[in-house]
Parts: sequence; C-alpha cells; structure tokens
Amino acid sequence: MDNTENDRDAVARTIAELNARVAYLEDRQAIVDLMTTYGPAVDAGSADAVARVWTSDGVYDVDTGVMCGREEIATMVRGDMHQGYVRAGCAHIMEPGRIRVDRDTAVATGKSMLIVHGGDGFTVLRATANRWELVRTDEGWKCARRIGRVLDGRSEARELLASAGE
Amino acid sequence: MDNTENDRDAVARTIAELNARVAYLEDRQAIVDLMTTYGPAVDAGSADAVARVWTSDGVYDVDTGVMCGREEIATMVRGDMHQGYVRAGCAHIMEPGRIRVDRDTAVATGKSMLIVHGGDGFTVLRATANRWELVRTDEGWKCARRIGRVLDGRSEARELLASAGE
Amino acid sequence: MDNTENDRDAVARTIAELNARVAYLEDRQAIVDLMTTYGPAVDAGSADAVARVWTSDGVYDVDTGVMCGREEIATMVRGDMHQGYVRAGCAHIMEPGRIRVDRDTAVATGKSMLIVHGGDGFTVLRATANRWELVRTDEGWKCARRIGRVLDGRSEARELLASAGE
Repeated sequence: MDNTENDRDAVARTIAELNARVAYLEDRQAIVDLMTTYGPAVDAGSADAVARVWTSDGVYDVDTGVMCGREEIATMVRGDMHQGYVRAGCAHIMEPGRIRVDRDTAVATGKSMLIVHGGDGFTVLRATANRWELVRTDEGWKCARRIGRVLDGRSEARELLASAGE
Repeated sequence: MDNTENDRDAVARTIAELNARVAYLEDRQAIVDLMTTYGPAVDAGSADAVARVWTSDGVYDVDTGVMCGREEIATMVRGDMHQGYVRAGCAHIMEPGRIRVDRDTAVATGKSMLIVHGGDGFTVLRATANRWELVRTDEGWKCARRIGRVLDGRSEARELLASAGE
Repeated sequence: MDNTENDRDAVARTIAELNARVAYLEDRQAIVDLMTTYGPAVDAGSADAVARVWTSDGVYDVDTGVMCGREEIATMVRGDMHQGYVRAGCAHIMEPGRIRVDRDTAVATGKSMLIVHGGDGFTVLRATANRWELVRTDEGWKCARRIGRVLDGRSEARELLASAGE
C-alpha cells in the first residue's frame, strides 16, 4: 500500500466517523422535534396532529386510561373532557426530557404539567411523570408507547422517573 | 476521469453534504440560544438584553399590547408593570418549542407561563401560546415578530398553536 | 507542492474544521444530557443519581443551605424534607437553560419551579433562578457548582439571571 492509499483510507475513515456522529445528533434533533410537536397540537385540540406523534399502533398509557392506536388517541383529543380543557384554555407544559438513544429505539423521560384556566385564573391541575418509548420508522421517529403517571405520591410515578437512567 | 479524480469528487461531495448537515444543526442550536436568552433577561428586568433578542424593527405582539422596535420593547421591560413583577419576584418559564427552519427564516411555537410571587406565595398569573418568527441576520438569528396570546380559551391562542405544524 | 498535495491539505483542513464544529455540538448535547439527568432523579428521590450530576467535590449552593461534595448532596436528597416532598408527589420542572461553553467549562442559566402535591391539589411551592457552572471531566461534563436563589424579589436572584449573558 503506498502513501496515497494510506491517506485515502484515513480520510474515508474520518469521514465515516464524522458521518456517524452527525447522524447521532440528527437523531437527537428529530426526537426533540417529535416531542415538541405534541405540545402545540394537544393544546390546540388538533386530534390528528396529536395522533401522528405515535406509530399507527402506538399506545398512550395514562393513569386515567389506556389508548391503543392513533384512532383511540385522536378520539380522546376530540372527547368532551379534553375539548372542555381546550375551550376553557389549557397548557400542557413540558420540560426538556432525558433522552437516551440505542440505535433504532430511544427512551425519553421527563415531567409535564397541565395548567387550566377557570374562574379563579390559572391552576396547576396535575404534574405528570412521562416515559416516551420511541422507534425509528419509515415516517421518522415515532412514539411506540408513552406512559404517564400523575405525581401525587404514587410509587409508580417515582419508579418511572427512577428508570430514566437505566 | 481516472479513479483518483473519481475519489476526489466523491470525497468533496461527502464533505459538502456533511457541511450542510452540520450547518443545519448549528442553526437549530443558534435558535435555541436566542430563545433561551430571553428568559433570564426578562426575569432580571434587563431591558436592553431583552430588546436585543429582536431585530432592530422587530415586533412583539402580545394580547396586552403591541410593541414595535427594540426601543418600545425595552420601554415595556423598564415600565412600572414589568418592574413591579421583577421586584416582587417572577419567572417567565418556557417549554422547549417546536422549531421549523426554512433556510434563512424559522418559526418556533411553544408555551410559556408567568409565575409571580406575592403574599400567598407563587401563583400562575398566565399561560401563553407563543409564535416566534425568526430571521437570520448579520448579528445572527433574531426575532422579527413574536406573537403571544393568553390561553384563556380564546380561539386566537388555539389557532396560533395549531399553525405550528404548517 | 503539486496540486494533489494542495487538495490533500484542503481536505484535511476542512475535515478538521468539521470535526471541531461537531465536537462543539456534542458538548452542547452532553451538557443538556447532564442537566436533564437531574430532573427525573430528584423527583424519584434517587440520592446517588442526583449526586453524580456534580463533580466529587461539587457544590450545590441554594438559599436554604449549601451542600459541599456528593455525600452532602445525597444526604439532602435522602433527608426528611426532600423525601417528604417525594412521598407527597413533587415535580422540579426545568425550562431549557441558556448555555455558554468556553472550551472545558460552561455556564447554564435558567429557571426551575417546584410543584408539590397536597390536600389542595398541586401548588407552586417556589420558582428558582439557577446558575450551573459546569466542567469537562474524565467522567464527562459535570456540575462543579450550582447556585439556586428563590425568585421572591431578592436582588441576588435577579443578579444571577442578569449574569447569564456575560
């Protein structure tokens, strides 16, 4: 092997490494983009936009009920309870989550709070521990399962948060 | 074309592509940096630092009033109402926004809440839907127009959030 | 120097520049990862996971007390007051911070709020101005010092936020 060939190999290897590092950062960006799509959609009451955050058979498992598949998730958003919040004024505020990517899957863990508007102004209706189980699909990163547990002292919510580092 | 020339072209193309991907991630980072400059500045009551988030003729259009240009924005921060909040203790908390970049412009959509301190401790004074219209300038990314609408049930606020995905 | 050598130099320089730009974005990502590790750990009451956010001799300087080193920080998390919040249900919600990196150190500035669950539902117990002084270590980015001051109108909290841009 002559020097030029050596050089060429080194350049190719360096470029391949850079490519992998940039691809990782792009995955992280795409996951943030997916998660931040949820917030505006849910407070606008846009059922289809909310549902598209999930895979077609994605699960949204909240302490108040479990929804399986986009149709059930969209039905919840269109439902009286959610539309009641939207009409009164509500804000599902999310903090930046802890995200860990493992090739084609990822887990994001973080808290959210639901602020609702009413006769007494704005109140914190609930604070929730969230675990997002994400997958890379042909449509980009999607949520395969999201688990939400209200932070009212129940151990399930604490255990969900404790599992963020695993 | 010999092999070496082919190789050189392929390397140049790969590097150009990497460069564009990194530049996109840098834009995203710069936009987050701009938006996270607002929060500490507004709760510190630093009028000039708040105003510099906008372009020199930038608009801050809130349901409580419209400010045009850095001077009007700085005047609001220096004003009795805002300085009253700052003296009592306040926190304009922001969630991570949904950001879409289109070359030299970008739109970020997300919610914020204003927490104020008073005799009864801390209360949520308002939750707001925000749309930031951003532009790349010689000074870096700046806000050309920010629209804020209180989430008290008014349709304008919901429509602002619903437009995040468009 | 012939053309091929010129080309090789130009490629090497471009790759080195790309490498530095990607390394900067990776630093930013690693700092966000460190900061978002704190939230789930603190609300789960996981003392060791909280402590590992700091360097071994890291300082957590809050208006309610100063903790020096991981053991004192872990002791606070295991203490009656913090475990009382965790058992009742609590959420330390963080907003995206303003981050500035200077080679091997960084400063992040942002607000957090402590939501606690009780007989009257959820209330905002405090809103806090935070300054994180971060360092690159053999274990990755760690917090060397975090200062937290409640936003109850005290000038210290405002000054902490005002220093974010310096």
